[in-house]
Amino acid sequence: MPNKIKKNSVLSMQRVEVLSQALPYIQKFNQKIFVVKYGGSAMNDPELKKETINDFALLSCVGIKLIVVHGGGPEISMMSKRLNLPVKFIDGQRVTDKKTMEIVEMVLVGKVQKDLVNLINVSGAKAIGLCGKDGKLFSAKPSSKMKKYGFIGEVKSIDTSILMTLVEKGFIPVISSVGADHSGQNYNINADSVASSIASALKSSKLILMTDTRGVLKNSKNPDSLISKINIIEAERLIKKKIISGGMIPKTKAAISALKSGVDAVHIINGNLKHSILLEVLTNTGIGTMITK
Amino acid sequence: MPNKIKKNSVLSMQRVEVLSQALPYIQKFNQKIFVVKYGGSAMNDPELKKETINDFALLSCVGIKLIVVHGGGPEISMMSKRLNLPVKFIDGQRVTDKKTMEIVEMVLVGKVQKDLVNLINVSGAKAIGLCGKDGKLFSAKPSSKMKKYGFIGEVKSIDTSILMTLVEKGFIPVISSVGADHSGQNYNINADSVASSIASALKSSKLILMTDTRGVLKNSKNPDSLISKINIIEAERLIKKKIISGGMIPKTKAAISALKSGVDAVHIINGNLKHSILLEVLTNTGIGTMITK
Amino acid sequence: MPNKIKKNSVLSMQRVEVLSQALPYIQKFNQKIFVVKYGGSAMNDPELKKETINDFALLSCVGIKLIVVHGGGPEISMMSKRLNLPVKFIDGQRVTDKKTMEIVEMVLVGKVQKDLVNLINVSGAKAIGLCGKDGKLFSAKPSSKMKKYGFIGEVKSIDTSILMTLVEKGFIPVISSVGADHSGQNYNINADSVASSIASALKSSKLILMTDTRGVLKNSKNPDSLISKINIIEAERLIKKKIISGGMIPKTKAAISALKSGVDAVHIINGNLKHSILLEVLTNTGIGTMITK
Amino acid sequence: MPNKIKKNSVLSMQRVEVLSQALPYIQKFNQKIFVVKYGGSAMNDPELKKETINDFALLSCVGIKLIVVHGGGPEISMMSKRLNLPVKFIDGQRVTDKKTMEIVEMVLVGKVQKDLVNLINVSGAKAIGLCGKDGKLFSAKPSSKMKKYGFIGEVKSIDTSILMTLVEKGFIPVISSVGADHSGQNYNINADSVASSIASALKSSKLILMTDTRGVLKNSKNPDSLISKINIIEAERLIKKKIISGGMIPKTKAAISALKSGVDAVHIINGNLKHSILLEVLTNTGIGTMITK
Amino acid sequence: MPNKIKKNSVLSMQRVEVLSQALPYIQKFNQKIFVVKYGGSAMNDPELKKETINDFALLSCVGIKLIVVHGGGPEISMMSKRLNLPVKFIDGQRVTDKKTMEIVEMVLVGKVQKDLVNLINVSGAKAIGLCGKDGKLFSAKPSSKMKKYGFIGEVKSIDTSILMTLVEKGFIPVISSVGADHSGQNYNINADSVASSIASALKSSKLILMTDTRGVLKNSKNPDSLISKINIIEAERLIKKKIISGGMIPKTKAAISALKSGVDAVHIINGNLKHSILLEVLTNTGIGTMITK
Amino acid sequence: MPNKIKKNSVLSMQRVEVLSQALPYIQKFNQKIFVVKYGGSAMNDPELKKETINDFALLSCVGIKLIVVHGGGPEISMMSKRLNLPVKFIDGQRVTDKKTMEIVEMVLVGKVQKDLVNLINVSGAKAIGLCGKDGKLFSAKPSSKMKKYGFIGEVKSIDTSILMTLVEKGFIPVISSVGADHSGQNYNINADSVASSIASALKSSKLILMTDTRGVLKNSKNPDSLISKINIIEAERLIKKKIISGGMIPKTKAAISALKSGVDAVHIINGNLKHSILLEVLTNTGIGTMITK
Repeated sequence: MPNKIKKNSVLSMQRVEVLSQALPYIQKFNQKIFVVKYGGSAMNDPELKKETINDFALLSCVGIKLIVVHGGGPEISMMSKRLNLPVKFIDGQRVTDKKTMEIVEMVLVGKVQKDLVNLINVSGAKAIGLCGKDGKLFSAKPSSKMKKYGFIGEVKSIDTSILMTLVEKGFIPVISSVGADHSGQNYNINADSVASSIASALKSSKLILMTDTRGVLKNSKNPDSLISKINIIEAERLIKKKIISGGMIPKTKAAISALKSGVDAVHIINGNLKHSILLEVLTNTGIGTMITK
Repeated sequence: MPNKIKKNSVLSMQRVEVLSQALPYIQKFNQKIFVVKYGGSAMNDPELKKETINDFALLSCVGIKLIVVHGGGPEISMMSKRLNLPVKFIDGQRVTDKKTMEIVEMVLVGKVQKDLVNLINVSGAKAIGLCGKDGKLFSAKPSSKMKKYGFIGEVKSIDTSILMTLVEKGFIPVISSVGADHSGQNYNINADSVASSIASALKSSKLILMTDTRGVLKNSKNPDSLISKINIIEAERLIKKKIISGGMIPKTKAAISALKSGVDAVHIINGNLKHSILLEVLTNTGIGTMITK
Repeated sequence: MPNKIKKNSVLSMQRVEVLSQALPYIQKFNQKIFVVKYGGSAMNDPELKKETINDFALLSCVGIKLIVVHGGGPEISMMSKRLNLPVKFIDGQRVTDKKTMEIVEMVLVGKVQKDLVNLINVSGAKAIGLCGKDGKLFSAKPSSKMKKYGFIGEVKSIDTSILMTLVEKGFIPVISSVGADHSGQNYNINADSVASSIASALKSSKLILMTDTRGVLKNSKNPDSLISKINIIEAERLIKKKIISGGMIPKTKAAISALKSGVDAVHIINGNLKHSILLEVLTNTGIGTMITK
Repeated sequence: MPNKIKKNSVLSMQRVEVLSQALPYIQKFNQKIFVVKYGGSAMNDPELKKETINDFALLSCVGIKLIVVHGGGPEISMMSKRLNLPVKFIDGQRVTDKKTMEIVEMVLVGKVQKDLVNLINVSGAKAIGLCGKDGKLFSAKPSSKMKKYGFIGEVKSIDTSILMTLVEKGFIPVISSVGADHSGQNYNINADSVASSIASALKSSKLILMTDTRGVLKNSKNPDSLISKINIIEAERLIKKKIISGGMIPKTKAAISALKSGVDAVHIINGNLKHSILLEVLTNTGIGTMITK
Repeated sequence: MPNKIKKNSVLSMQRVEVLSQALPYIQKFNQKIFVVKYGGSAMNDPELKKETINDFALLSCVGIKLIVVHGGGPEISMMSKRLNLPVKFIDGQRVTDKKTMEIVEMVLVGKVQKDLVNLINVSGAKAIGLCGKDGKLFSAKPSSKMKKYGFIGEVKSIDTSILMTLVEKGFIPVISSVGADHSGQNYNINADSVASSIASALKSSKLILMTDTRGVLKNSKNPDSLISKINIIEAERLIKKKIISGGMIPKTKAAISALKSGVDAVHIINGNLKHSILLEVLTNTGIGTMITK
Repeated sequence: MPNKIKKNSVLSMQRVEVLSQALPYIQKFNQKIFVVKYGGSAMNDPELKKETINDFALLSCVGIKLIVVHGGGPEISMMSKRLNLPVKFIDGQRVTDKKTMEIVEMVLVGKVQKDLVNLINVSGAKAIGLCGKDGKLFSAKPSSKMKKYGFIGEVKSIDTSILMTLVEKGFIPVISSVGADHSGQNYNINADSVASSIASALKSSKLILMTDTRGVLKNSKNPDSLISKINIIEAERLIKKKIISGGMIPKTKAAISALKSGVDAVHIINGNLKHSILLEVLTNTGIGTMITK
């Protein structure tokens, strides 16, 4: 055998060996629903984005019913600046006046979401973009701090019938976290919170929150102090003791709420890491924090 | 009986009398597919818009499978101006460079379409917004005059499976005429042409083009010279004789193409007229031009 | 525009305006089951009959699952007389000996019902005639006053499977209130009571009793003293206080029984009034008495 | 073992032995459609009637999709006489004026058919009575000899959708040969001819015509000259040679027409013979004439 | 009529008469599940075997969902002897070492079961052979007396999904009582016990145990002392009083266990008697013992 | 990060990288039917067997509809020897007298097949064992050389309904190449030929023949002269020129026959190589010979 072919064969052999090791994971999650909040750097770096989306296509292809909820901060700020609208954050929340809300919807639904839909299609799967208004998926209500933040809303009610119609036909729904209230006024809703609400309504098998940090840390200054697995009681204790702090608090709370509504497990993972979702779901190692009941 | 109640009863009686007269029309189109190109003034005047959308909800509610393709010129120009992008038309076509194309998609999909979806929902029906990329509904290719017009494209291929999934579940698909080519590059496609392609692919019962004119005129300067009914041969003759001219030529050509692909009838109607679509479909009078084989 | 056409257009416009106003009613009752007891003058006057049947076709066509139970006194008397059989009533009940029972069945099933089926078909819908024996829809038992009235029976048991099979395929079942007991002996059953039993078994959305009076009256001598809306408790009180009296008592009792079995609302309307069923169901005015829980 | 039990056991053994021998016949006709014209003495003698109907229930129960078309002459004549209507026959056809037609429908649909439905129900199966008008099963047109015979009609068109809906749910349709034309005028149609039309439209496996004679005879005066099996060509030859004559001619023609439309085999059997239909279908002997292509 | 034909007709008439009498039994058990333990002499005598299998085909053909569990002792012993393996029984149980277990599986699955499948196919039905491993139908665990008997096991868990898939498509499952534990080790399980477990899991209508005795006897020495019908309480009393003894004890216990799990009736019948299963199920006489709740 | 965890992470990363690369292959074959002839060393070496079976489970799990046809020579010879039956081969065919045929069936169906079913179950998938008799999957007829070889047969007819029932429910059918003729006589059929017949009847996407050689060689003495891809015309030419020779001739003929019946591609691969089937199907390299139209 010529050397090149031999080397090729060796490589191929390693590949199928690995595939073969994924079998138990694939069997375990067959026909299960995963709701993924996709955001942060994993969405901004083009190379990482493409690979993450391929990972979505792979999960869908091996029989997992995938639902993606996406964020998209940077592009909103960019467009706001081009339109000379103020870009202002209070407590990490984008202050969203009426004009900004219009831009938020246009950019999220008309650009970020459609790019994702297109990339998923290119990867060989079939995606459908939705916002809260499509098929009345979810309606919004103002948050309690409307005066401070403007049109930042919360999920008021959910109707998942359109999602079930789509996942059963093999489509991947890609959801922008924008919804309207009964009067037709739009609200920007936190994407983690929309993902948690949808996962809860579907009692999904997993809710996966892609972030820019490694997961829940024992010591927020030491990235190596990652907690791999934690249950609700411990998580609540860590929030109380302020070990879980900052931006990780709302994420952990979204996780706890989903678990209490019947979701089996919530994963907080680092989207910056290539193939982070496959690593968390299809290997023993795990790379983030899994929260369970 | 007090006078007021009597009067009310008289009114109610007139109403149900009319409903009763609509029976044969409703029976005739039960479970049939109508593809409607919705655009022009019927979309810009808020009052007219609301009423047109209620008409859509009514048609859907009495058993017609409605698919709406929308246009949306004015809002694109407005946003382009706000972003200091040039707004330029050649031969009635918007010159669409790369930056403008981005705005076209954002405005059509992220604003115009979502407003329509919301208004249809408010009217009691259930809509889903789609562009060519969603569920790979249609792909685009550059037009032959790309150098002149920029990213103005044509429909390259159609996959109607997502449409059938949705209309069978009672949703009204609302489609923006934006699609991508294999590389992911977006194109703005003429909405009449997208509507005609979809109607053709579905061999729909009707294709209805809402315009700002009364229909096909014998004498383009006399709005009272409306031709109520015409067949393909006559239509082709009128184009040749230049009696059909200007903006009516592409519309008539889209109509002829749809008829040749198996659509039963094409209606060109004046969207400016209140309830124009109900008048054309549910009364004997008709108000526009019906083109048949 | 010539005057005649103008006038036509004005008329058409009024028509579609009215259609448009029916939307919320049609949406509200889509796919709901209505059981209608059809009888009295609305069945005897040929013009009224044709219009009532067109109303049935309209309700069916806009998505309501309609089930019609019919009466038919006059034709039975006529045939009895032709055959020299005694025509005798005690307490408003036809005294039904064995020979008369034979005629009752023949006339109701073989004439009255088949005429209705034919008229509904002619109106563009599709009807199927049934009696209690068809598909074992309902079985009969003698009433407690058999010695007095003869073969006047009551519903003993109901099997609605044939009804569901038919309404799901879009047929309108037209039911004669004749059933047999286990030995094959036929009984004539009060049509209001059969309609109430079927509505109860199906937990239908509405039970509509068409009568020859305006509805429940506060003062039975003043037809303008109509009670538009009443609940079970008040209705029972009015019976006790003898404000509801005579032939309205069994109707009100049938209504109360249906409501207690899960029917949402019962309407007692005046079938003599043209389009009475549309007026009651598709307008705000209402024209009879609605009884609710 | 006591003698009585022994005898019982012997009898039981003979019984199951016989059942066991029927296996190949039952397997052969499983899920096949049989259309039976039921009439003559088999319907008039109460004992024979009950047994024939039990045979229907048995065929249905072992998996045959049975459709029964019934006749009913004697009861029509009886009722006509009671009403002092003339009872007159020309060429074996009942002369049917407008008043008689009314009686024909009432008696066939409202008495004869409903009795059959009830008897089938009592035998443990589930029947539904239909005439041409129910579900628009068949429409009628006048025969060419209308002046002579009056409202004797022919099948104009057939819509078997209601039949398929019913047999797939396990019901036995029992059909009266009365239909209406577009104007609603009723016609009495020859039951053999209706059965043949329905068998043809369904391309049924068998069409069985129950008569009062043994089948096709070589010598019409010798009942022992029965022809057990014959094909279309021979049958046509026998008609030409006038060996097939009298009332057997229309039956044979109905048979030939059904065979040419795709029915597999037509059986002409003697309904006077107990269990004639089981004998013809479930034994090797056969008892009538089978006509094949 | 020549004598031979006459005689034939008489015979045929008797036959259909009998068929006709089976109607109520066939109606009663239509679409019901019967689990039959098939073993003993009924399987060893070739003539009897053929007839029993035809009875299975008949029951399946008239709409009963039949599931057969078979035994097969003699052929195992024969093959063991050919291979010089010891053939040893303790307490009526075959002592089954590892080598013998291999033979048990091979003979039961690869010979006895396949012969039955073939014979059922030849009889016109369609059979599928299964053991515990196929579709994970049942798993095994060692019995408590493993040291004494070797690889004689018990049913540990059951998954009836493959059975339902097959009977709904009209196949007759033929099951060998061999299953494996989690490590893949095979066990021979008592066929009565497997049949009882499957009947219990399916809450079947009947469990029928074919044996070489007449049923439960009052006096085990007098075969005429058969108890035709008994309930659980009496059966338990008879075991206590040792009137039920020997090999009938485990059978009666299997019966009681099945009844307690929701099986409607258990029949212990004598497979040596021709058509025993038809006699027990399709006649009034009955020939064995029926045990009910 | 501690070294061990780092190393683990690196390994995991490589793994998911590989998984990710398999996406296009998995998408390509989703819901496609593969028929695999499984035999030779891949079935005899326990380690290799376990891995091959895991590969089957993996293919099934990622959405491929897998059907396995197995061989099993060595175990037949072993059992024959234990029973002192002659083990004789002519032209590579096992001479199969009546007694040997009995052993062939017992060993293949009752041992080899059941072991495979169990191993597939243990791997997490769900298998069902079948031979030609189960569900009348295939019937056999004697080969033309019966006198020479004995009960070596050929496939006479195929009924794939049981296969479709099973694969649609997610089961993996495991088929022994033993079938019976109409008289019930068993025949041993070449497993390649059974696999080819089944693939042909299903017009499967792939037929994969696992052998003990690398594939089709240009020079049968040089294993490095493998032909990776070949079409029917070339294959036929190579047979004619005797470059394809010996045992590869029947395999190539089976391949050509399958391709001509509508199979998309046939792969001849070396089952001795670990993960050979994954390598051939899920990598670009390929490791055997692919034959196409």
